[in-house]
Amino acid sequence: MTDTMKAAVFRGREDIRLEERPIPRCGPTEAIVKVTLTTICGTDVHIWREEYPVKPGRIVGHEPVGVIHELGEAVTGYEVGERVLVGAITPCGTCFFCQSHNESQCSGYDDRWEMVGGWRLGNSIDGVQAEYFRVPYAQANLAKIPDDLSDEQCLMLADIASTGISAAETADVQIGQSVAVFAQGPIGLCATAGARLRGASLIIAVDSIHQRLELSKAMGASEVIDFTEEDPVAAIKRLTEGRGVDVAIEALGTQQTFQACLDATRPGGIVSSLGVYGGKLELPVESLVYGIGDKRILTTLCPGGKERMRKLMELVRNGRFDPSPLITHDFTLDQIEDAYDLFGNQREGVVKVALRVDGAAPRAHAAGAASRAAT
Amino acid sequence: MTDTMKAAVFRGREDIRLEERPIPRCGPTEAIVKVTLTTICGTDVHIWREEYPVKPGRIVGHEPVGVIHELGEAVTGYEVGERVLVGAITPCGTCFFCQSHNESQCSGYDDRWEMVGGWRLGNSIDGVQAEYFRVPYAQANLAKIPDDLSDEQCLMLADIASTGISAAETADVQIGQSVAVFAQGPIGLCATAGARLRGASLIIAVDSIHQRLELSKAMGASEVIDFTEEDPVAAIKRLTEGRGVDVAIEALGTQQTFQACLDATRPGGIVSSLGVYGGKLELPVESLVYGIGDKRILTTLCPGGKERMRKLMELVRNGRFDPSPLITHDFTLDQIEDAYDLFGNQREGVVKVALRVDGAAPRAHAAGAASRAAT
Amino acid sequence: MTDTMKAAVFRGREDIRLEERPIPRCGPTEAIVKVTLTTICGTDVHIWREEYPVKPGRIVGHEPVGVIHELGEAVTGYEVGERVLVGAITPCGTCFFCQSHNESQCSGYDDRWEMVGGWRLGNSIDGVQAEYFRVPYAQANLAKIPDDLSDEQCLMLADIASTGISAAETADVQIGQSVAVFAQGPIGLCATAGARLRGASLIIAVDSIHQRLELSKAMGASEVIDFTEEDPVAAIKRLTEGRGVDVAIEALGTQQTFQACLDATRPGGIVSSLGVYGGKLELPVESLVYGIGDKRILTTLCPGGKERMRKLMELVRNGRFDPSPLITHDFTLDQIEDAYDLFGNQREGVVKVALRVDGAAPRAHAAGAASRAAT
Amino acid sequence: MTDTMKAAVFRGREDIRLEERPIPRCGPTEAIVKVTLTTICGTDVHIWREEYPVKPGRIVGHEPVGVIHELGEAVTGYEVGERVLVGAITPCGTCFFCQSHNESQCSGYDDRWEMVGGWRLGNSIDGVQAEYFRVPYAQANLAKIPDDLSDEQCLMLADIASTGISAAETADVQIGQSVAVFAQGPIGLCATAGARLRGASLIIAVDSIHQRLELSKAMGASEVIDFTEEDPVAAIKRLTEGRGVDVAIEALGTQQTFQACLDATRPGGIVSSLGVYGGKLELPVESLVYGIGDKRILTTLCPGGKERMRKLMELVRNGRFDPSPLITHDFTLDQIEDAYDLFGNQREGVVKVALRVDGAAPRAHAAGAASRAAT
Repeated sequence: MTDTMKAAVFRGREDIRLEERPIPRCGPTEAIVKVTLTTICGTDVHIWREEYPVKPGRIVGHEPVGVIHELGEAVTGYEVGERVLVGAITPCGTCFFCQSHNESQCSGYDDRWEMVGGWRLGNSIDGVQAEYFRVPYAQANLAKIPDDLSDEQCLMLADIASTGISAAETADVQIGQSVAVFAQGPIGLCATAGARLRGASLIIAVDSIHQRLELSKAMGASEVIDFTEEDPVAAIKRLTEGRGVDVAIEALGTQQTFQACLDATRPGGIVSSLGVYGGKLELPVESLVYGIGDKRILTTLCPGGKERMRKLMELVRNGRFDPSPLITHDFTLDQIEDAYDLFGNQREGVVKVALRVDGAAPRAHAAGAASRAAT
Repeated sequence: MTDTMKAAVFRGREDIRLEERPIPRCGPTEAIVKVTLTTICGTDVHIWREEYPVKPGRIVGHEPVGVIHELGEAVTGYEVGERVLVGAITPCGTCFFCQSHNESQCSGYDDRWEMVGGWRLGNSIDGVQAEYFRVPYAQANLAKIPDDLSDEQCLMLADIASTGISAAETADVQIGQSVAVFAQGPIGLCATAGARLRGASLIIAVDSIHQRLELSKAMGASEVIDFTEEDPVAAIKRLTEGRGVDVAIEALGTQQTFQACLDATRPGGIVSSLGVYGGKLELPVESLVYGIGDKRILTTLCPGGKERMRKLMELVRNGRFDPSPLITHDFTLDQIEDAYDLFGNQREGVVKVALRVDGAAPRAHAAGAASRAAT
Repeated sequence: MTDTMKAAVFRGREDIRLEERPIPRCGPTEAIVKVTLTTICGTDVHIWREEYPVKPGRIVGHEPVGVIHELGEAVTGYEVGERVLVGAITPCGTCFFCQSHNESQCSGYDDRWEMVGGWRLGNSIDGVQAEYFRVPYAQANLAKIPDDLSDEQCLMLADIASTGISAAETADVQIGQSVAVFAQGPIGLCATAGARLRGASLIIAVDSIHQRLELSKAMGASEVIDFTEEDPVAAIKRLTEGRGVDVAIEALGTQQTFQACLDATRPGGIVSSLGVYGGKLELPVESLVYGIGDKRILTTLCPGGKERMRKLMELVRNGRFDPSPLITHDFTLDQIEDAYDLFGNQREGVVKVALRVDGAAPRAHAAGAASRAAT
Repeated sequence: MTDTMKAAVFRGREDIRLEERPIPRCGPTEAIVKVTLTTICGTDVHIWREEYPVKPGRIVGHEPVGVIHELGEAVTGYEVGERVLVGAITPCGTCFFCQSHNESQCSGYDDRWEMVGGWRLGNSIDGVQAEYFRVPYAQANLAKIPDDLSDEQCLMLADIASTGISAAETADVQIGQSVAVFAQGPIGLCATAGARLRGASLIIAVDSIHQRLELSKAMGASEVIDFTEEDPVAAIKRLTEGRGVDVAIEALGTQQTFQACLDATRPGGIVSSLGVYGGKLELPVESLVYGIGDKRILTTLCPGGKERMRKLMELVRNGRFDPSPLITHDFTLDQIEDAYDLFGNQREGVVKVALRVDGAAPRAHAAGAASRAAT
């Protein structure tokens, strides 16, 4: 074994390229994981476009499935060779934020609140679109994959499933409530699944892409609205006796969808925001106070930690949730530039790509992915 | 129209019989409902056996579907002739308990805490196994039935679905948690559905009757345990890496199942108790403190009120939950004594009976009901 | 007794005047209360300035202490002559919103969601700055005053104490957390008391008026910041190891204080908003997502209902909270125009005024009110 | 410096004696703390009496204040010489239980659920009634003591304050609710303070010792009941309009007080149990179901972790809570046998003892401790 590896490195605007890099070394509380399967996130596209600031030279990627390659001396209960899933957020478990149950804002062992938060991989430290990566706070973040789950079944759990489902959890959706999900991209589709998993009755999916609205039905939507055909706020009011939904989930990140969420929510309802917004949002305050107001706005980052990953894997194992239909395209790590081009430019109806790192041949591109979705 | 009606009246041990009674009169905040469909509850069987004290002469029954016959002058927003569902619990909405969000313990407008609580129909006031009944606090308790729902689809919602599902709600089951449900009678089956609706991953159903274990799979169980074949606590530990489930739901009401729930629950877990116990329970305190302890015991009565009923009907409308497979037998009100005999003695594999009050012919008895259950 | 009464009527911009009006008549679910003591709210000043729309001719005021004068036939458990407190919000207890536990958004018996919500008195129906007023949904809203409480001790509970305290409740402040309260007007002072009542450790009060900062200490502030002397966000970060507070409460209603609340809150923290904003708010989204983001914005209207009023009176009875120091000036109903002039223009260091309706002589104006505050 | 130390070792029934032991050695994720001040817990007395099983040879004690003596290589953000408080429970922050927010049940890095839980010090590993002790999972458990707090002000926070206060937190006591606390020993007194900190209005303290009832007033009780003079259940019902309290806290651990808690709680109320019970408890089930039932039973172990300790210290720093009046007697470590004799046999009105380990002279025994209690 050589001591170098291939890794996808951010170099500048629309420039993420494969480079040769040293295999990372393992500290006492860390682990090195050999990646088998990873993917590209919408946030990676923001990095690729220089819309989200990442240091040039950073290895990108934060959604890894792999095998334990090396373990720090203080890490116990694991063995080299075990298959693991690591979440996009890697909480330390010991800082102010972790002990306050805001793991997504983890400031690490140093407890320096000004640190960038629990999202480290491919952001403040090197990421996982590589042959190997270093897992910080490994004791808290290595989630063993049960034998009866494939890598593909786990891949989406690291970020988009955890994030999307959390929108319904943060909003504390109750059995029988109504939920609207604005935008049915990968995270919105998982938010739709989250609303179903929390027992919502009426689940309304909003998008304009036919394929995504079809996928949303597979994820649990009871009604779909093509916003190019019908004003979604009016449609939602029509479906809820004029009141608006109990919970609206924003999964795009624009002023327009945020405003639509506020307008589509009943008095006393909740807007659960997942989207990443650029610039400044306007908050129409008459929606907040008096009369038809009294709403709450909640935001969530991706929940992480090995127990979160374990619970999501248990959902898949028990047939409650299957995110694999979201994988519409396959690439190898060598094809990373093609993969960013396709996914970044949203061509060929791509929903999510799989990046095979272990040299396995890519699957044929999925046809009729929606038909495989969970019911 | 005459001013008398037929009604099932409790007269003594195993003596509930049809009598001629005056049609009830309507006060300003009340309504009179003409019953179309009702059923017999396990609690009615406790009354029938004199295990639960009810005044002789009381009309029994608390699960009504019907049509508004008369409205009190202070009740607004309804019209005579509208189809309605009324929950087993009829909260007033204004007393200490209702304003404290303990509607099941509602003490009524008089706010006399020593009153019997929110379960009034067929208990402290006349019930619904009759051609007509009076709805107390009608403004809070008349839930209109949407046109696209049949009476049969709503019948189980008044009590057992509301109660069974509430076990998972009270325990605040989280997405991906594990839940065991002890006993798969009507309420246990609905508790199983409740665990699924809250997003549990592993749902373990315990019973000894093959038919009920089959029904439990239709309701959402991922594993079933026949306790005559395997110790359920050992089986649950085997399925949960030795820890025990996050939440155990007791749906029978015996010392043995209660104890099993405590033993099958992980440290820090929750026992959510629905069963009606006779006599005194022993609480093995070593389960509560130190080491493997730190558990919580929660009890729930049936949630009621028109908004609860509306939300449950929305679940059914949107295909999230279908309790109708629980109805295995049909009777008319005239056959009330046969119905109590069959249901009270649990003959012919009965799960729930439908009592047709409006003179409609009974359906053929269900065969293969489980095959119709929600998926 | 004649059948007319004196009432303060909104006629136009800065024109609220005393008029002779019929004593209201009582419906079956209503009550008529003879007012003994009331006050003017900041919201009344918005009405007086035509900043909040109310129909000309409307009797204003929503904070009443009085005596039951007449009871509707469906109202039970009360007697004419009993002293009562009625909250600013009068929930019906039976509509969608009340049964969903959003009582502040109550749409009433008619359940018409487009109705203006639970704030009716002096808004959508005639109010309480009058000799008599009609209580809608009286069964849910008449809170008997214990003999050992004076009218003055109860007066602030109808609105500002209920609203102010609710900011800490909505934010679910935990024992030992840090809280900043921006603006120490009447509601901000009660929010400060609410933070103390929820067990906050560090409570930081922000204002620029010396007298109000002194009052805030009496209400529970451990630190006070005069924002004309020091940047409050910087001061808050200095007091919290650079992190920001767990919870910031906005009690003014300006873009500047709202922004300061977002900036002064730690990642994962909560902004609890009480202020009434004019126009549109900007929501600086970088505060919400990524890195230092992940915040929640909650809004609250005044909680109402007789049980809310009872609980607040119990706080006062048991010495946990004393809002009476907030009353700095006394007027009679005949002096209503003077009272609006003084309070509306914030002259003479006014915090809250008492309006005596029953002909009792006004007290001398309070000197050193802060010294009487609860400890 | 020699490499041995003095330590209080459990040898058998009523036999805890000072022995010479090696100073513990420090692993990579651990720390060694030089103890300055510690105390004896009621649980230590259970060990002393052989009522709670601990391995002979175990160093006892779990409430330490001290100074960092040595730091493991993986522990960052601390320096030798810093004053620290360590909680009785030492969660790892990474296991199933910690990531499930059941830190008291922490199974450690090994994640072996059958481990004894988060209470390790003086239980499953050597404790703190010694000159030095080893802190497991040091990164999660070393809470720096601010300069403005004395050792004495922090001593009670490690266990009894954290435990006592948690009873009100677990029960989610709401502002204005009524709470009864059965038994006013050290933990019951802290539970009384916890009820006050959560904003309870009526707080009823039950005991039979005059001195403790006086202390309970200092901690926040609004009413005290001497159960030798009056039936406490009857007294509580008299004080709550016949309903019973919203929350009853059990802080003794007997069938009689547990039963009294159930009886003294209103329908729909909560029993929050802190006591350590011997043998089996009977749970009178008619208290749980139907009519006056619908209660919840919650148990809590001592919450731990450095952030818990930090929040409790912030309460003390900001004058919200002062547990120091509970320290009624002082001893040095050399006097450990006398200290167990006095505290174990509850002589001389002892509430809590301070054990000075650093050679400082003991304070004079407190006279009129209650007068120093927090207000």
